Amino acid sequence: MTYCLGIVTKYGLVMASDSRTNAGYDQINVCRKMHTFQQPGQRVFVLLTSGSLSCTQSIITLLQRDFDKGKGLAEVTSMYDAARIIGDQIRAVADKDRAALEKDNLHFNVCVLLGGQVRGQEPQLFMIYPQGNPLQATEESPYLQIGETKYGRPILDRGIRFDRTSLEDAAKYALLSLDSTMRSNVTVGPPIDLLAYNVDALQFTHQRRFTADDPDLVKIRMRWEQALRQAVQRLPTIRFRIAPGASEPARPEGEESIELVDASASETPAEQVVQKQPKQSA
Amino acid sequence: MTYCLGIVTKYGLVMASDSRTNAGYDQINVCRKMHTFQQPGQRVFVLLTSGSLSCTQSIITLLQRDFDKGKGLAEVTSMYDAARIIGDQIRAVADKDRAALEKDNLHFNVCVLLGGQVRGQEPQLFMIYPQGNPLQATEESPYLQIGETKYGRPILDRGIRFDRTSLEDAAKYALLSLDSTMRSNVTVGPPIDLLAYNVDALQFTHQRRFTADDPDLVKIRMRWEQALRQAVQRLPTIRFRIAPGASEPARPEGEESIELVDASASETPAEQVVQKQPKQSA
Repeated sequence: MTYCLGIVTKYGLVMASDSRTNAGYDQINVCRKMHTFQQPGQRVFVLLTSGSLSCTQSIITLLQRDFDKGKGLAEVTSMYDAARIIGDQIRAVADKDRAALEKDNLHFNVCVLLGGQVRGQEPQLFMIYPQGNPLQATEESPYLQIGETKYGRPILDRGIRFDRTSLEDAAKYALLSLDSTMRSNVTVGPPIDLLAYNVDALQFTHQRRFTADDPDLVKIRMRWEQALRQAVQRLPTIRFRIAPGASEPARPEGEESIELVDASASETPAEQVVQKQPKQSA
Repeated sequence: MTYCLGIVTKYGLVMASDSRTNAGYDQINVCRKMHTFQQPGQRVFVLLTSGSLSCTQSIITLLQRDFDKGKGLAEVTSMYDAARIIGDQIRAVADKDRAALEKDNLHFNVCVLLGGQVRGQEPQLFMIYPQGNPLQATEESPYLQIGETKYGRPILDRGIRFDRTSLEDAAKYALLSLDSTMRSNVTVGPPIDLLAYNVDALQFTHQRRFTADDPDLVKIRMRWEQALRQAVQRLPTIRFRIAPGASEPARPEGEESIELVDASASETPAEQVVQKQPKQSA
Protein backbone atom coordinates (compact mmCIF):
# COMPACT_ATOMS: atom_id res chain seq x y z
CA MET A 1 0.00 0.00 0.00
CA THR A 2 0.94 3.64 -0.34
CA TYR A 3 -0.20 7.02 0.81
CA CYS A 4 0.80 10.16 -1.10
CA LEU A 5 -0.75 13.60 -1.10
CA GLY A 6 -0.30 16.93 -2.78
CA ILE A 7 -1.56 20.33 -1.61
CA VAL A 8 -1.73 23.47 -3.76
CA THR A 9 -2.33 26.90 -2.25
CA LYS A 10 -1.74 30.45 -3.48
CA TYR A 11 1.66 30.20 -1.79
CA GLY A 12 2.85 27.12 -3.66
CA LEU A 13 2.85 23.36 -3.31
CA VAL A 14 3.44 20.75 -0.62
CA MET A 15 3.95 17.13 -1.68
CA ALA A 16 4.41 14.17 0.67
CA SER A 17 4.77 10.42 0.32
CA ASP A 18 5.38 7.37 2.44
CA SER A 19 8.04 4.81 1.45
CA ARG A 20 6.62 1.40 2.24
CA THR A 21 5.96 -1.16 -0.46
CA ASN A 22 4.59 -4.57 0.18
CA ALA A 23 3.91 -7.70 -1.79
CA GLY A 24 1.48 -9.47 0.50
CA TYR A 25 1.98 -9.22 4.24
CA ASP A 26 5.36 -10.86 4.40
CA GLN A 27 7.42 -8.89 1.93
CA ILE A 28 7.91 -5.30 3.02
CA ASN A 29 10.44 -2.97 1.44
CA VAL A 30 11.42 0.68 1.47
CA CYS A 31 11.18 2.64 -1.75
CA ARG A 32 11.15 6.33 -2.56
CA LYS A 33 7.90 7.31 -4.25
CA MET A 34 8.82 10.96 -4.80
CA HIS A 35 10.65 11.88 -8.02
CA THR A 36 11.68 15.36 -9.14
CA PHE A 37 12.46 16.76 -12.59
CA GLN A 38 13.69 20.31 -12.82
CA GLN A 39 15.27 22.88 -15.11
CA PRO A 40 15.88 25.68 -12.62
CA GLY A 41 14.29 28.93 -13.72
CA GLN A 42 12.19 27.19 -16.41
CA ARG A 43 10.10 24.30 -15.13
CA VAL A 44 9.90 22.07 -12.09
CA PHE A 45 7.92 18.87 -11.58
CA VAL A 46 7.50 16.52 -8.64
CA LEU A 47 5.81 13.15 -9.16
CA LEU A 48 4.40 10.86 -6.46
CA THR A 49 3.48 7.34 -7.50
CA SER A 50 1.23 4.55 -6.26
CA GLY A 51 0.47 1.10 -7.59
CA SER A 52 2.65 -1.74 -8.81
CA LEU A 53 6.23 -0.67 -8.12
CA SER A 54 7.42 -2.52 -11.22
CA CYS A 55 5.12 -0.41 -13.40
CA THR A 56 5.80 2.94 -11.69
CA GLN A 57 9.54 2.33 -12.05
CA SER A 58 9.10 1.79 -15.78
CA ILE A 59 7.11 5.01 -16.10
CA ILE A 60 9.71 7.06 -14.19
CA THR A 61 12.56 5.46 -16.16
CA LEU A 62 10.95 6.33 -19.49
CA LEU A 63 10.08 9.88 -18.37
CA GLN A 64 13.67 10.37 -17.18
CA ARG A 65 15.14 9.02 -20.42
CA ASP A 66 13.14 11.56 -22.46
CA PHE A 67 13.86 14.37 -20.00
CA ASP A 68 17.60 13.76 -20.24
CA LYS A 69 17.34 14.10 -24.03
CA GLY A 70 15.51 17.43 -23.68
CA LYS A 71 12.20 15.84 -24.64
CA GLY A 72 8.93 15.11 -22.83
CA LEU A 73 8.76 16.94 -19.51
CA ALA A 74 11.83 18.97 -20.56
CA GLU A 75 9.95 20.80 -23.30
CA VAL A 76 6.36 21.13 -22.11
CA THR A 77 4.96 24.64 -21.92
CA SER A 78 2.15 24.03 -19.40
CA MET A 79 1.36 21.82 -16.44
CA TYR A 80 -1.57 20.39 -18.39
CA ASP A 81 0.81 19.23 -21.10
CA ALA A 82 3.09 17.75 -18.44
CA ALA A 83 0.14 15.79 -17.04
CA ARG A 84 -0.63 14.55 -20.56
CA ILE A 85 3.00 13.49 -21.11
CA ILE A 86 2.81 11.43 -17.92
CA GLY A 87 -0.54 9.98 -18.97
CA ASP A 88 0.98 8.95 -22.29
CA GLN A 89 3.80 7.11 -20.49
CA ILE A 90 1.29 5.40 -18.19
CA ARG A 91 -0.56 4.21 -21.30
CA ALA A 92 2.68 3.12 -22.96
CA VAL A 93 3.58 0.95 -19.97
CA ALA A 94 0.00 -0.33 -19.79
CA ASP A 95 0.32 -1.37 -23.43
CA LYS A 96 3.49 -3.30 -22.58
CA ASP A 97 2.41 -4.95 -19.32
CA ARG A 98 -1.31 -4.90 -18.74
CA ALA A 99 -2.32 -7.99 -20.68
CA ALA A 100 0.34 -10.14 -19.00
CA LEU A 101 -0.66 -8.87 -15.57
CA GLU A 102 -4.33 -9.56 -16.15
CA LYS A 103 -3.63 -13.13 -17.19
CA ASP A 104 -2.67 -13.64 -13.55
CA ASN A 105 -5.51 -11.53 -12.18
CA LEU A 106 -3.24 -8.62 -11.33
CA HIS A 107 -4.54 -5.12 -12.00
CA PHE A 108 -2.71 -2.35 -13.77
CA ASN A 109 -3.22 0.19 -11.03
CA VAL A 110 -0.68 2.98 -11.41
CA CYS A 111 -1.61 6.45 -10.18
CA VAL A 112 0.56 9.57 -10.26
CA LEU A 113 0.29 12.89 -8.43
CA LEU A 114 2.01 15.69 -10.32
CA GLY A 115 2.85 19.06 -8.80
CA GLY A 116 4.94 21.76 -10.36
CA GLN A 117 5.21 25.01 -12.21
CA VAL A 118 6.15 26.19 -15.69
CA ARG A 119 7.68 29.66 -15.91
CA GLY A 120 5.09 32.39 -16.39
CA GLN A 121 2.19 30.23 -15.14
CA GLU A 122 0.71 29.32 -11.78
CA PRO A 123 1.81 26.22 -9.85
CA GLN A 124 -0.68 23.40 -10.44
CA LEU A 125 -1.48 19.97 -9.04
CA PHE A 126 -2.84 16.98 -10.98
CA MET A 127 -3.72 13.35 -10.42
CA ILE A 128 -3.19 11.07 -13.41
CA TYR A 129 -5.38 7.96 -13.34
CA PRO A 130 -4.30 4.44 -14.36
CA GLN A 131 -6.10 5.06 -17.66
CA GLY A 132 -3.84 8.06 -18.31
CA ASN A 133 -6.39 10.86 -18.02
CA PRO A 134 -5.59 13.80 -15.71
CA LEU A 135 -7.66 15.44 -12.94
CA GLN A 136 -6.66 18.90 -11.69
CA ALA A 137 -6.91 20.18 -8.13
CA THR A 138 -8.98 23.36 -7.79
CA GLU A 139 -9.26 26.23 -5.33
CA GLU A 140 -12.31 24.50 -3.83
CA SER A 141 -10.54 21.11 -3.65
CA PRO A 142 -6.92 22.15 -3.16
CA TYR A 143 -5.48 18.75 -2.30
CA LEU A 144 -5.32 15.34 -3.98
CA GLN A 145 -4.48 11.95 -2.50
CA ILE A 146 -3.57 8.51 -3.87
CA GLY A 147 -3.35 5.11 -2.16
CA GLU A 148 -4.75 4.70 1.37
CA THR A 149 -6.58 8.03 1.42
CA LYS A 150 -9.29 7.87 4.06
CA TYR A 151 -7.47 8.00 7.41
CA GLY A 152 -5.56 11.12 6.44
CA ARG A 153 -8.39 13.06 4.87
CA PRO A 154 -10.40 14.65 7.72
CA ILE A 155 -7.46 16.73 8.96
CA LEU A 156 -7.03 18.11 5.41
CA ASP A 157 -10.75 18.83 5.04
CA ARG A 158 -10.76 20.71 8.31
CA GLY A 159 -7.63 22.72 7.72
CA ILE A 160 -6.53 23.35 4.13
CA ARG A 161 -7.80 26.50 2.40
CA PHE A 162 -6.36 27.55 -0.97
CA ASP A 163 -6.24 31.24 -0.17
CA ARG A 164 -5.36 31.12 3.51
CA THR A 165 -3.11 28.18 4.39
CA SER A 166 0.59 29.10 4.46
CA LEU A 167 3.16 26.71 3.03
CA GLU A 168 4.55 26.12 6.52
CA ASP A 169 1.10 25.11 7.80
CA ALA A 170 0.38 23.03 4.69
CA ALA A 171 3.60 21.09 5.35
CA LYS A 172 2.44 20.41 8.92
CA TYR A 173 -0.98 19.24 7.70
CA ALA A 174 0.69 16.92 5.20
CA LEU A 175 2.93 15.45 7.88
CA LEU A 176 0.00 14.97 10.28
CA SER A 177 -2.09 13.37 7.54
CA LEU A 178 0.70 10.90 6.77
CA ASP A 179 1.40 10.22 10.41
CA SER A 180 -2.29 9.47 11.10
CA THR A 181 -2.37 7.06 8.18
CA MET A 182 0.82 5.26 9.23
CA ARG A 183 -0.68 4.78 12.66
CA SER A 184 -3.84 3.14 11.32
CA ASN A 185 -2.46 1.09 8.40
CA VAL A 186 0.83 -0.79 8.76
CA THR A 187 1.24 -1.05 4.99
CA VAL A 188 1.86 2.72 4.94
CA GLY A 189 5.22 3.41 6.52
CA PRO A 190 8.27 5.62 6.94
CA PRO A 191 10.44 7.25 5.84
CA ILE A 192 8.21 10.18 4.89
CA ASP A 193 9.40 12.38 2.01
CA LEU A 194 8.21 15.96 2.24
CA LEU A 195 8.74 18.74 -0.30
CA ALA A 196 7.62 22.36 -0.08
CA TYR A 197 7.70 24.61 -3.14
CA ASN A 198 7.33 28.39 -3.02
CA VAL A 199 5.40 29.94 -5.90
CA ASP A 200 7.75 31.26 -8.64
CA ALA A 201 10.89 29.74 -7.07
CA LEU A 202 11.25 27.56 -10.20
CA GLN A 203 13.61 25.27 -8.38
CA PHE A 204 13.19 22.74 -5.56
CA THR A 205 14.90 24.04 -2.47
CA HIS A 206 13.02 22.54 0.49
CA GLN A 207 13.01 18.79 0.91
CA ARG A 208 13.12 16.60 3.96
CA ARG A 209 13.07 12.89 4.68
CA PHE A 210 11.70 11.81 8.09
CA THR A 211 12.62 8.37 9.38
CA ALA A 212 10.36 6.63 11.91
CA ASP A 213 12.38 7.85 14.88
CA ASP A 214 13.22 11.30 13.50
CA PRO A 215 13.24 13.47 16.65
CA ASP A 216 11.36 16.30 14.91
CA LEU A 217 8.63 13.91 13.77
CA VAL A 218 8.36 12.38 17.24
CA LYS A 219 8.13 15.87 18.79
CA ILE A 220 5.47 17.02 16.33
CA ARG A 221 3.43 13.86 16.93
CA MET A 222 3.60 14.24 20.73
CA ARG A 223 2.73 17.92 20.66
CA TRP A 224 -0.12 17.22 18.26
CA GLU A 225 -1.67 14.54 20.47
CA GLN A 226 -1.38 16.82 23.50
CA ALA A 227 -2.98 19.68 21.59
CA LEU A 228 -5.86 17.46 20.40
CA ARG A 229 -6.60 16.27 23.92
CA GLN A 230 -6.57 19.83 25.22
CA ALA A 231 -8.79 20.97 22.36
CA VAL A 232 -11.30 18.20 23.14
CA GLN A 233 -11.37 19.15 26.81
CA ARG A 234 -12.00 22.80 25.91
CA LEU A 235 -14.97 22.01 23.66
CA PRO A 236 -18.37 22.85 25.13
CA THR A 237 -19.76 20.05 27.30
CA ILE A 238 -22.34 18.00 25.46
CA ARG A 239 -25.74 18.58 26.97
CA PHE A 240 -27.71 15.36 27.23
CA ARG A 241 -31.40 14.91 27.75
CA ILE A 242 -31.89 13.32 31.16
CA ALA A 243 -34.52 10.60 31.10
CA PRO A 244 -37.58 11.41 33.26
CA GLY A 245 -37.27 9.91 36.73
CA ALA A 246 -33.65 8.94 36.17
CA SER A 247 -31.26 9.37 39.07
CA GLU A 248 -29.09 12.13 37.71
CA PRO A 249 -25.36 11.90 38.27
CA ALA A 250 -23.69 14.86 39.97
CA ARG A 251 -22.92 17.60 37.44
CA PRO A 252 -22.30 21.32 37.51
CA GLU A 253 -25.50 23.38 37.64
CA GLY A 254 -26.80 24.65 34.33
CA GLU A 255 -24.84 22.13 32.28
CA GLU A 256 -27.89 20.19 31.17
CA SER A 257 -30.66 21.16 28.85
CA ILE A 258 -33.85 19.25 28.37
CA GLU A 259 -33.76 17.66 24.93
CA LEU A 260 -36.59 15.56 23.65
CA VAL A 261 -35.41 12.27 22.26
CA ASP A 262 -37.34 11.76 19.07
CA ALA A 263 -38.17 8.12 19.65
CA SER A 264 -40.56 8.03 16.72
CA ALA A 265 -37.96 8.95 14.09
CA SER A 266 -39.04 7.77 10.69
CA GLU A 267 -37.83 4.24 10.09
CA THR A 268 -38.34 4.05 6.35
CA PRO A 269 -36.97 0.80 4.98
CA ALA A 270 -34.32 1.12 2.28
CA GLU A 271 -34.20 -2.14 0.44
CA GLN A 272 -31.10 -4.21 0.00
CA VAL A 273 -28.45 -1.71 0.99
CA VAL A 274 -25.23 -3.49 0.17
CA GLN A 275 -22.16 -2.81 2.24
CA LYS A 276 -18.65 -4.18 2.40
CA GLN A 277 -18.22 -6.75 5.12
CA PRO A 278 -15.62 -5.89 7.73
CA LYS A 279 -12.67 -8.25 7.65
CA GLN A 280 -12.74 -10.61 10.58
CA SER A 281 -9.83 -10.10 12.96
CA ALA A 282 -7.67 -13.17 13.28
CA MET B 1 -23.63 3.30 4.19
CA THR B 2 -23.43 3.65 7.93
CA TYR B 3 -21.01 4.71 10.60
CA CYS B 4 -21.45 3.55 14.19
CA LEU B 5 -18.96 3.40 17.03
CA GLY B 6 -18.78 2.31 20.61
CA ILE B 7 -16.24 3.35 23.23
CA VAL B 8 -15.68 1.60 26.56
CA THR B 9 -13.63 3.17 29.35
CA LYS B 10 -13.38 2.57 33.08
CA TYR B 11 -16.07 5.24 33.44
CA GLY B 12 -18.64 3.54 31.22
CA LEU B 13 -19.75 3.49 27.60
CA VAL B 14 -20.36 5.94 24.79
CA MET B 15 -22.26 4.76 21.72
CA ALA B 16 -22.96 6.80 18.60
CA SER B 17 -24.57 6.20 15.22
CA ASP B 18 -25.52 8.09 12.09
CA SER B 19 -29.01 7.75 10.60
CA ARG B 20 -28.58 7.70 6.86
CA THR B 21 -29.55 4.68 4.79
CA ASN B 22 -29.19 4.48 1.08
CA ALA B 23 -30.10 2.06 -1.68
CA GLY B 24 -27.85 3.28 -4.46
CA TYR B 25 -27.15 6.97 -4.77
CA ASP B 26 -30.68 8.06 -5.49
CA GLN B 27 -32.63 6.60 -2.59
CA ILE B 28 -31.64 8.15 0.71
CA ASN B 29 -33.64 7.73 3.90
CA VAL B 30 -33.37 8.44 7.60
CA CYS B 31 -33.43 5.53 10.01
CA ARG B 32 -32.47 5.15 13.64
CA LYS B 33 -29.67 2.60 14.02
CA MET B 34 -29.51 2.75 17.84
CA HIS B 35 -31.76 0.40 19.80
CA THR B 36 -31.92 0.04 23.58
CA PHE B 37 -33.13 -2.81 25.78
CA GLN B 38 -33.20 -2.26 29.51
CA GLN B 39 -34.45 -3.66 32.79
CA PRO B 40 -33.43 -0.82 35.12
CA GLY B 41 -31.25 -2.05 37.97
CA GLN B 42 -30.68 -5.43 36.30
CA ARG B 43 -29.32 -5.20 32.73
CA VAL B 44 -29.00 -2.64 29.99
CA PHE B 45 -28.06 -3.11 26.35
CA VAL B 46 -27.62 -0.71 23.46
CA LEU B 47 -27.29 -2.09 19.92
CA LEU B 48 -25.99 -0.25 16.86
CA THR B 49 -26.55 -1.88 13.48
CA SER B 50 -25.05 -1.72 10.02
CA GLY B 51 -25.81 -3.56 6.81
CA SER B 52 -29.02 -4.31 4.96
CA LEU B 53 -31.74 -2.40 6.80
CA SER B 54 -34.26 -5.10 5.98
CA CYS B 55 -32.11 -7.70 7.78
CA THR B 56 -31.21 -5.54 10.78
CA GLN B 57 -34.89 -4.70 11.28
CA SER B 58 -35.69 -8.42 11.37
CA ILE B 59 -32.98 -9.03 13.95
CA ILE B 60 -34.16 -6.20 16.21
CA THR B 61 -37.79 -7.28 15.84
CA LEU B 62 -36.97 -10.86 16.88
CA LEU B 63 -34.76 -9.73 19.78
CA GLN B 64 -37.54 -7.38 20.97
CA ARG B 65 -40.17 -10.10 20.72
CA ASP B 66 -38.13 -12.39 22.96
CA PHE B 67 -37.22 -9.57 25.35
CA ASP B 68 -40.89 -8.65 25.83
CA LYS B 69 -41.60 -12.27 26.80
CA GLY B 70 -38.79 -12.19 29.39
CA LYS B 71 -36.55 -14.33 27.19
CA GLY B 72 -33.30 -13.76 25.26
CA LEU B 73 -31.64 -10.50 26.31
CA ALA B 74 -34.09 -10.29 29.24
CA GLU B 75 -32.57 -13.29 30.98
CA VAL B 76 -28.87 -13.30 30.11
CA THR B 77 -26.44 -13.22 33.01
CA SER B 78 -23.40 -11.80 31.20
CA MET B 79 -22.53 -9.49 28.33
CA TYR B 80 -20.88 -12.42 26.57
CA ASP B 81 -24.16 -14.32 26.65
CA ALA B 82 -25.96 -11.23 25.34
CA ALA B 83 -23.50 -11.07 22.42
CA ARG B 84 -24.17 -14.75 21.73
CA ILE B 85 -27.97 -14.22 21.81
CA ILE B 86 -27.56 -11.48 19.20
CA GLY B 87 -25.25 -13.68 17.13
CA ASP B 88 -27.89 -16.44 17.23
CA GLN B 89 -30.52 -14.03 15.89
CA ILE B 90 -28.15 -12.85 13.15
CA ARG B 91 -27.71 -16.51 12.15
CA ALA B 92 -31.46 -17.12 12.31
CA VAL B 93 -32.12 -14.24 9.93
CA ALA B 94 -29.23 -15.36 7.71
CA ASP B 95 -30.87 -18.79 7.54
CA LYS B 96 -34.11 -17.16 6.40
CA ASP B 97 -32.75 -14.61 3.92
CA ARG B 98 -29.18 -15.27 2.87
CA ALA B 99 -29.80 -17.75 0.06
CA ALA B 100 -32.42 -15.53 -1.57
CA LEU B 101 -30.15 -12.49 -1.34
CA GLU B 102 -27.20 -14.31 -2.84
CA LYS B 103 -29.27 -15.42 -5.81
CA ASP B 104 -29.28 -11.73 -6.76
CA ASN B 105 -25.64 -11.17 -5.80
CA LEU B 106 -26.55 -9.31 -2.61
CA HIS B 107 -24.44 -10.01 0.46
CA PHE B 108 -25.72 -10.79 3.92
CA ASN B 109 -23.71 -8.10 5.65
CA VAL B 110 -25.24 -7.35 9.03
CA CYS B 111 -22.97 -6.14 11.81
CA VAL B 112 -23.95 -5.19 15.35
CA LEU B 113 -22.16 -3.23 18.04
CA LEU B 114 -23.36 -4.16 21.53
CA GLY B 115 -22.62 -2.11 24.61
CA GLY B 116 -24.10 -2.62 28.03
CA GLN B 117 -23.84 -3.93 31.54
CA VAL B 118 -25.29 -6.78 33.56
CA ARG B 119 -25.65 -6.16 37.30
CA GLY B 120 -22.58 -7.18 39.27
CA GLN B 121 -20.28 -7.15 36.22
CA GLU B 122 -18.30 -4.56 34.29
CA PRO B 123 -19.71 -2.69 31.30
CA GLN B 124 -18.52 -4.35 28.07
CA LEU B 125 -18.48 -3.64 24.37
CA PHE B 126 -18.74 -6.22 21.55
CA MET B 127 -18.92 -6.36 17.79
CA ILE B 128 -20.95 -9.22 16.38
CA TYR B 129 -19.94 -10.18 12.85
CA PRO B 130 -22.32 -11.15 10.00
CA GLN B 131 -21.41 -14.78 10.76
CA GLY B 132 -22.69 -14.34 14.33
CA ASN B 133 -19.41 -14.60 16.23
CA PRO B 134 -18.55 -11.89 18.76
CA LEU B 135 -15.39 -9.78 19.20
CA GLN B 136 -14.86 -7.94 22.49
CA ALA B 137 -13.24 -4.52 22.93
CA THR B 138 -10.26 -4.55 25.29
CA GLU B 139 -8.40 -2.04 27.44
CA GLU B 140 -5.77 -1.79 24.68
CA SER B 141 -8.42 -1.39 21.94
CA PRO B 142 -11.22 0.35 23.82
CA TYR B 143 -13.37 1.28 20.83
CA LEU B 144 -15.06 -0.60 18.00
CA GLN B 145 -16.49 0.71 14.72
CA ILE B 146 -18.78 -0.63 12.00
CA GLY B 147 -19.56 0.70 8.51
CA GLU B 148 -17.45 3.53 7.07
CA THR B 149 -14.73 3.33 9.69
CA LYS B 150 -11.58 4.94 8.30
CA TYR B 151 -12.26 8.67 8.26
CA GLY B 152 -13.29 8.69 11.91
CA ARG B 153 -10.52 6.50 13.27
CA PRO B 154 -7.42 8.71 13.66
CA ILE B 155 -9.09 11.02 16.19
CA LEU B 156 -10.02 7.97 18.31
CA ASP B 157 -6.51 6.50 18.04
CA ARG B 158 -5.00 9.78 19.17
CA GLY B 159 -7.37 10.41 22.03
CA ILE B 160 -9.17 7.46 23.61
CA ARG B 161 -7.51 5.75 26.59
CA PHE B 162 -9.42 3.15 28.62
CA ASP B 163 -8.14 4.31 31.99
CA ARG B 164 -7.95 8.06 31.39
CA THR B 165 -10.67 9.30 29.05
CA SER B 166 -13.70 10.65 30.90
CA LEU B 167 -17.19 9.87 29.62
CA GLU B 168 -17.68 13.55 28.76
CA ASP B 169 -14.53 13.54 26.63
CA ALA B 170 -15.38 10.18 25.07
CA ALA B 171 -18.74 11.64 24.00
CA LYS B 172 -16.91 14.55 22.35
CA TYR B 173 -14.52 12.19 20.55
CA ALA B 174 -17.46 10.13 19.31
CA LEU B 175 -19.21 13.23 18.00
CA LEU B 176 -16.05 14.49 16.29
CA SER B 177 -15.41 11.07 14.77
CA LEU B 178 -18.94 10.99 13.33
CA ASP B 179 -18.78 14.59 12.19
CA SER B 180 -15.49 13.97 10.33
CA THR B 181 -16.99 10.94 8.61
CA MET B 182 -20.16 12.77 7.57
CA ARG B 183 -18.01 15.48 6.06
CA SER B 184 -16.03 13.03 3.91
CA ASN B 185 -18.74 10.52 2.92
CA VAL B 186 -22.22 11.72 1.97
CA THR B 187 -23.70 8.27 2.57
CA VAL B 188 -23.09 8.81 6.29
CA GLY B 189 -25.48 11.47 7.55
CA PRO B 190 -27.43 13.08 10.36
CA PRO B 191 -29.20 12.90 12.70
CA ILE B 192 -26.51 11.59 15.04
CA ASP B 193 -27.69 9.49 17.99
CA LEU B 194 -25.41 9.69 21.00
CA LEU B 195 -25.72 7.75 24.25
CA ALA B 196 -23.49 7.95 27.32
CA TYR B 197 -23.71 5.34 30.07
CA ASN B 198 -22.14 5.72 33.49
CA VAL B 199 -20.72 2.53 34.99
CA ASP B 200 -23.19 0.86 37.40
CA ALA B 201 -26.07 3.20 36.51
CA LEU B 202 -27.94 0.15 35.16
CA GLN B 203 -30.32 2.41 33.28
CA PHE B 204 -29.96 4.66 30.25
CA THR B 205 -30.25 8.26 31.33
CA HIS B 206 -28.18 10.27 28.83
CA GLN B 207 -29.23 10.27 25.23
CA ARG B 208 -29.20 12.97 22.60
CA ARG B 209 -30.12 13.26 18.94
CA PHE B 210 -28.26 15.89 16.89
CA THR B 211 -29.84 17.06 13.65
CA ALA B 212 -27.62 18.52 10.92
CA ASP B 213 -28.25 22.09 12.02
CA ASP B 214 -28.30 21.43 15.78
CA PRO B 215 -26.75 24.61 17.22
CA ASP B 216 -24.64 22.64 19.72
CA LEU B 217 -23.22 20.45 16.94
CA VAL B 218 -22.50 23.49 14.76
CA LYS B 219 -20.77 25.21 17.70
CA ILE B 220 -18.67 22.15 18.53
CA ARG B 221 -17.66 21.74 14.88
CA MET B 222 -16.64 25.41 14.54
CA ARG B 223 -14.70 25.44 17.79
CA TRP B 224 -12.99 22.19 16.83
CA GLU B 225 -11.85 23.50 13.47
CA GLN B 226 -10.56 26.68 15.09
CA ALA B 227 -8.71 24.66 17.72
CA LEU B 228 -7.14 22.38 15.08
CA ARG B 229 -5.88 25.34 13.07
CA GLN B 230 -4.42 26.95 16.18
CA ALA B 231 -2.81 23.66 17.19
CA VAL B 232 -1.21 23.31 13.75
CA GLN B 233 0.15 26.84 13.91
CA ARG B 234 1.64 26.16 17.35
CA LEU B 235 3.48 23.02 16.22
CA PRO B 236 7.24 23.42 15.79
CA THR B 237 8.17 24.75 12.34
CA ILE B 238 9.32 21.96 10.05
CA ARG B 239 13.03 22.36 9.35
CA PHE B 240 13.82 21.66 5.72
CA ARG B 241 17.16 20.93 4.17
CA ILE B 242 18.00 23.83 1.88
CA ALA B 243 19.48 22.65 -1.42
CA PRO B 244 23.10 23.81 -1.94
CA GLY B 245 23.28 27.03 -3.94
CA ALA B 246 19.52 27.54 -3.72
CA SER B 247 18.26 31.05 -3.19
CA GLU B 248 16.84 30.74 0.28
CA PRO B 249 13.51 32.40 0.99
CA ALA B 250 13.41 34.85 3.89
CA ARG B 251 12.92 32.97 7.18
CA PRO B 252 13.59 33.63 10.82
CA GLU B 253 17.19 32.97 11.84
CA GLY B 254 17.91 29.56 13.28
CA GLU B 255 14.77 27.98 11.84
CA GLU B 256 16.63 25.80 9.39
CA SER B 257 18.83 22.84 9.99
CA ILE B 258 21.00 21.16 7.41
CA GLU B 259 19.48 17.80 6.62
CA LEU B 260 21.01 15.43 4.13
CA VAL B 261 18.49 14.17 1.64
CA ASP B 262 19.16 10.50 1.26
CA ALA B 263 18.90 10.38 -2.52
CA SER B 264 20.27 6.85 -2.65
CA ALA B 265 17.49 5.30 -0.56
CA SER B 266 17.17 1.62 -1.33
CA GLU B 267 14.78 1.09 -4.19
CA THR B 268 14.16 -2.62 -3.82
CA PRO B 269 11.48 -3.75 -6.23
CA ALA B 270 8.50 -5.46 -4.67
CA GLU B 271 6.86 -7.46 -7.37
CA GLN B 272 3.25 -7.06 -8.36
CA VAL B 273 1.94 -5.06 -5.46
CA VAL B 274 -1.78 -4.97 -6.06
CA GLN B 275 -3.76 -1.98 -4.98
CA LYS B 276 -7.32 -0.85 -5.33
CA GLN B 277 -7.84 1.61 -8.15
CA PRO B 278 -9.24 4.96 -7.14
CA LYS B 279 -12.71 5.55 -8.50
CA GLN B 280 -12.64 8.08 -11.31
CA SER B 281 -14.51 11.25 -10.50
CA ALA B 282 -17.38 11.88 -12.87
